Amino acid sequence: MKPTLPRRFVSELFGTSFLVAAVIGSGIMAERLSNGNVALALLANTVATGAALVALILAFGPISGAHLNPVVSVMDALEGGLPWTEVPHYVIAQIVGGIVGTVVAHLMFGLPIISFSRHARAGSPQLFSEFVATFGLLCVIWGSSRLRSNTVPFAVGAYITAAYWFTSSTSFANPAVTLARSLSDTFTGIRPRDVTCFAAAQFLGGFAATLQFRWLVPTLPARAADVLVTHRAER
Amino acid sequence: MKPTLPRRFVSELFGTSFLVAAVIGSGIMAERLSNGNVALALLANTVATGAALVALILAFGPISGAHLNPVVSVMDALEGGLPWTEVPHYVIAQIVGGIVGTVVAHLMFGLPIISFSRHARAGSPQLFSEFVATFGLLCVIWGSSRLRSNTVPFAVGAYITAAYWFTSSTSFANPAVTLARSLSDTFTGIRPRDVTCFAAAQFLGGFAATLQFRWLVPTLPARAADVLVTHRAER
Amino acid sequence: MKPTLPRRFVSELFGTSFLVAAVIGSGIMAERLSNGNVALALLANTVATGAALVALILAFGPISGAHLNPVVSVMDALEGGLPWTEVPHYVIAQIVGGIVGTVVAHLMFGLPIISFSRHARAGSPQLFSEFVATFGLLCVIWGSSRLRSNTVPFAVGAYITAAYWFTSSTSFANPAVTLARSLSDTFTGIRPRDVTCFAAAQFLGGFAATLQFRWLVPTLPARAADVLVTHRAER
Amino acid sequence: MKPTLPRRFVSELFGTSFLVAAVIGSGIMAERLSNGNVALALLANTVATGAALVALILAFGPISGAHLNPVVSVMDALEGGLPWTEVPHYVIAQIVGGIVGTVVAHLMFGLPIISFSRHARAGSPQLFSEFVATFGLLCVIWGSSRLRSNTVPFAVGAYITAAYWFTSSTSFANPAVTLARSLSDTFTGIRPRDVTCFAAAQFLGGFAATLQFRWLVPTLPARAADVLVTHRAER
Repeated sequence: MKPTLPRRFVSELFGTSFLVAAVIGSGIMAERLSNGNVALALLANTVATGAALVALILAFGPISGAHLNPVVSVMDALEGGLPWTEVPHYVIAQIVGGIVGTVVAHLMFGLPIISFSRHARAGSPQLFSEFVATFGLLCVIWGSSRLRSNTVPFAVGAYITAAYWFTSSTSFANPAVTLARSLSDTFTGIRPRDVTCFAAAQFLGGFAATLQFRWLVPTLPARAADVLVTHRAER
Repeated sequence: MKPTLPRRFVSELFGTSFLVAAVIGSGIMAERLSNGNVALALLANTVATGAALVALILAFGPISGAHLNPVVSVMDALEGGLPWTEVPHYVIAQIVGGIVGTVVAHLMFGLPIISFSRHARAGSPQLFSEFVATFGLLCVIWGSSRLRSNTVPFAVGAYITAAYWFTSSTSFANPAVTLARSLSDTFTGIRPRDVTCFAAAQFLGGFAATLQFRWLVPTLPARAADVLVTHRAER
Repeated sequence: MKPTLPRRFVSELFGTSFLVAAVIGSGIMAERLSNGNVALALLANTVATGAALVALILAFGPISGAHLNPVVSVMDALEGGLPWTEVPHYVIAQIVGGIVGTVVAHLMFGLPIISFSRHARAGSPQLFSEFVATFGLLCVIWGSSRLRSNTVPFAVGAYITAAYWFTSSTSFANPAVTLARSLSDTFTGIRPRDVTCFAAAQFLGGFAATLQFRWLVPTLPARAADVLVTHRAER
Repeated sequence: MKPTLPRRFVSELFGTSFLVAAVIGSGIMAERLSNGNVALALLANTVATGAALVALILAFGPISGAHLNPVVSVMDALEGGLPWTEVPHYVIAQIVGGIVGTVVAHLMFGLPIISFSRHARAGSPQLFSEFVATFGLLCVIWGSSRLRSNTVPFAVGAYITAAYWFTSSTSFANPAVTLARSLSDTFTGIRPRDVTCFAAAQFLGGFAATLQFRWLVPTLPARAADVLVTHRAER
């Protein structure tokens, strides 16, 4: 039996909230301790984010699938997984959860609840980076979930660990997280005005990967429902 | 057949002892080698702690569940897992084990057996951090153990790896470990007078997560007994 | 049912493309941020590469086996896995994919599409390193795939993480990746004139490991087909 | 069917050889690149060693159990696993393999084949560290192999990753590796005169852990044979 929608809503909300708190919080800690050594700060931020993803997808995956990302929810719906009527619930939970996560991170470090980031992230290399990063993320999700959904947490955590370094944008790859990070004028922030372009590039990348995997794996649509680790466990 | 209580007592004692020795010992080594580069020291401390958790939960989980944490034992009892009569045994084993771990770490580095920490860790951001850290820890334990208890060691290790960086308190998240760390005037220490508030915040966070998961996963109580990885293996 | 050859061709092409983008891209990012601290740059490059391998083999393994490496495809054919008639398709996909990956990495960082590396990598210690590195890689693949093919992604990712540091050449261990890296005058580049010797040492190392495992594991040829994780999943 | 003794001999020899090459080689690379930043050098050395252990135990475990360590072979024999008549073969393979690994590492970095280390490692804190390190290693092996032997590679890799930092001796925990490291006057070396005491402390630690687990897990002896991951797979 699939968990009820309210339960899955709360699961996505809390999961995204913890994800954003981990990204922003570890960025604040890393910047404070690293005395301007940006490589070291990003390495700590990377380790924290990758590890958080492994833990959170293992924990919330069995309840709501642990999408934690509007691109994932929309693409899953496109392939016949999540019903379209539930997509808005998922996306709202992710957006609200992301903002809650920003606030929680700020409170944990004694900062103002919200602060608009002044960190400019724009230009075609960075937008292309977001396209590539999200394209890769959806490839990894579709590819690893086909065989055994229990490898998804490790595949996603490992992928983002790598992608923080191999893209010039440090791979946001998630519109809800991008929005939340615009509300934090800290290490991992992004100027509010840059959010829309990032989100567009992310959706395009995710869509391109989904189209490609439709051809690569003809049986994908029939299996999309199983991307939600949870469903399989609940049945 | 479940292992006898004395065996589980010793398992919790040794597991917690190794956990604390890993936390404190790696902190001493990291501080000695890093020449004041605190970000690098914390990164080494993080890697050592996360890896130790994976190894220790894999090793002692099959015997006693590898709670290694009074919050976990109490919450497991609350959900109908560990019998209430056994909770004091578990908690005493964890507290004694933690102190033994401190002594072992000090002996390995040629330091006095015990030294009271002078590292102030207080204030609402840090207490809120401990609440969040332990809330998240219990979410991860309840969530990941529901589906497949064999993912718990990796989920907990990954979670603490992240939490060291995303909280301003570096996520003690464990009253027995907090007490033990108050007896070490080294990198990972905490002033004895700050222990009580930390422990209170930790219990509150764990309790809140348990209440939330009761609603999120209605079948949780019936399964709580299985949180002890060991039981399932022994049957 | 095994995926069709065109599908497997595209899988190898995209997989190798992402692998090279991860190697080169993380090298560029690491060099930019690390202010000449080469140890820190290589550590970031290592973490990114190892994590990328885990994610990519989990994602593309079920489709094409995720060889991503001409040495692996040739040795798999030698043991009766991949049909010899399909080897050229795999190798071309890997070479083209590698070049695409270089271009993608450069575009993500706003660099010229192609630039020939001036990084000299030659001499017998480095060639011996490539022999050892690829010998070890094939040992790890044959050894870990015998028991359970689902450990291959973790074994390969962990092996390359180690080999980046224990060889003086930083373990290219892959002729397609070596060629692609010659087209990037950045941190992870290699002079075009050094590519042939590297590739020769890599094939020799892989061949030696395959001969040894033939004797070590007499049942290996019969199982070689299963090295392609995908086949097992498709059946 | 269990692999023949010559095959297992070669498996132990190659496995230990790669382990030592990884330890010494990554130490040389780390020292060369880190400009005297010892914390950073040890972190790179740690990551390489832990990852190598995961890869090597996954690869050679199915053939010979991947003991790679005389303490493990002797303790396994003590519990009824490895026949006593085969112990000398295992130990000789490990010692010879270790020396080969030292030579290989030196050749890869263009150093003299052998050089006696001048790195003093002595004193009771370091000897106590080796006792604790090997005690913990055997706890982790006995504990994790009881439930599911397929977690042993990850448990051992994670444990040594932690132990490099939480002991003042950086956890050699392996007499064959200790001997091999005495032949390398590089970052990870140890003075030849210090080898005997280290080895004695290691055997004592392993023996104490084995005695404790005999009591902790009464069914251990009957299961010791399964510590060799390989046997189970071969049957």
